[in-house]
Amino acid sequence: MSYKLYYWTGLQGRGEFVRLCLEDVGADYTDVARIEGDDVMTPFLDGEHQGAVPYAPPFLTSGRLVIAQVANILQYLGPRHGLVPEGEAKRLHAHQLELTISDLVAEVHDTHHPVASELYYEDQKAEAKKRSKDFRENRIPKFLDYFEKTIERGGGRFPLREHSYVDLSLFQVMSGLAYAFPKAMAKQKLPLLRDLQKRVADRPNISAYLSSERRIPFNTTGIFRHYPELDG
Amino acid sequence: MSYKLYYWTGLQGRGEFVRLCLEDVGADYTDVARIEGDDVMTPFLDGEHQGAVPYAPPFLTSGRLVIAQVANILQYLGPRHGLVPEGEAKRLHAHQLELTISDLVAEVHDTHHPVASELYYEDQKAEAKKRSKDFRENRIPKFLDYFEKTIERGGGRFPLREHSYVDLSLFQVMSGLAYAFPKAMAKQKLPLLRDLQKRVADRPNISAYLSSERRIPFNTTGIFRHYPELDG
Repeated sequence: MSYKLYYWTGLQGRGEFVRLCLEDVGADYTDVARIEGDDVMTPFLDGEHQGAVPYAPPFLTSGRLVIAQVANILQYLGPRHGLVPEGEAKRLHAHQLELTISDLVAEVHDTHHPVASELYYEDQKAEAKKRSKDFRENRIPKFLDYFEKTIERGGGRFPLREHSYVDLSLFQVMSGLAYAFPKAMAKQKLPLLRDLQKRVADRPNISAYLSSERRIPFNTTGIFRHYPELDG
Repeated sequence: MSYKLYYWTGLQGRGEFVRLCLEDVGADYTDVARIEGDDVMTPFLDGEHQGAVPYAPPFLTSGRLVIAQVANILQYLGPRHGLVPEGEAKRLHAHQLELTISDLVAEVHDTHHPVASELYYEDQKAEAKKRSKDFRENRIPKFLDYFEKTIERGGGRFPLREHSYVDLSLFQVMSGLAYAFPKAMAKQKLPLLRDLQKRVADRPNISAYLSSERRIPFNTTGIFRHYPELDG
């Protein structure tokens, strides 16, 4: 099966959660906009293709399917590539965790855009400082302690007792938060999450991906942005 | 199958999207916290039960399963109660639409809490006014035009050509936005969404539910809140 991934060029953003899955399993995929440009996505967003119309990138095509929303894409890929355990209970659990990661990612976005996605960061900097303070002091600990406890409950190595797409997303969250909020993250203990992050980075396909040109560096156009004034 | 729904008492909130499904299909369910109080949820959130630990309410138990996250719950209920069409493509599409509704609902929450969930509305009113202005002018039209076009593409009556849980959630979104932002919503045309909203309200089980005491009125403790100063 050959996949086509569609996401904005020049940033990791939400597309990165999908890329990490595709790379981890060595899937045959094309990162289409990086070859053809962002305009290639417009006909999909304008409903000029068969199938579902995405509200926004990322979206993945697989044969005639058009699949949008990160957690939906991962839920689709998981069983096809051994990235989620067998059984209804485990799959519902995996998806629940992924949706909680999506909630966290949306909150990360709003640390630098608390007023309006359409405005520049510079035009909402005062509000961003307030929101980031709350995010650092309350939201990072609440979300990450929850995932730390989930790993503990899963036996100490994985949230779901074995490797899954949730590991890859938690790797991305931990890496992104460490880039965006290095001072705040240095205060967090999280031994199980940090160990998971390291083990994911060491997976052969992920390690090769991270040192390739396919891995776009973190930068201040993505979801995770490093603005020192937001890190306290 | 008898379900137990767990959600904060006194507000519709995110729990309402689950209630509408359970009511529409006439499922046997208990709205547990409304009988036993909010503390009944604590052991689940503290991980003292078997199964998945929710990050937050709502969650549903079905036999030994503990299912959290609204879209995950609806995806579980859909095939069991004829609330989603058959086939992988349709189910991925339904879930994608539901996840986009979840994104919209999170943005509605942030119109009154743009700085911190933990702070009172009164302590973030200035920021709420700014965020609500953008929400009214940019986000409401963008999201609702997308759903209007989805119904149009689906033949004019349903986003998925037949009744599904997405209809119920769009009913709730349209009702909630009309309560919270009556002036802004009066400016929107959206004939297909308004027709869908009316047809959902007229479904026998939904109609009976809406006029029962089980339907908590909209109020300023839920997701959709009417603060006149945020409606322009």
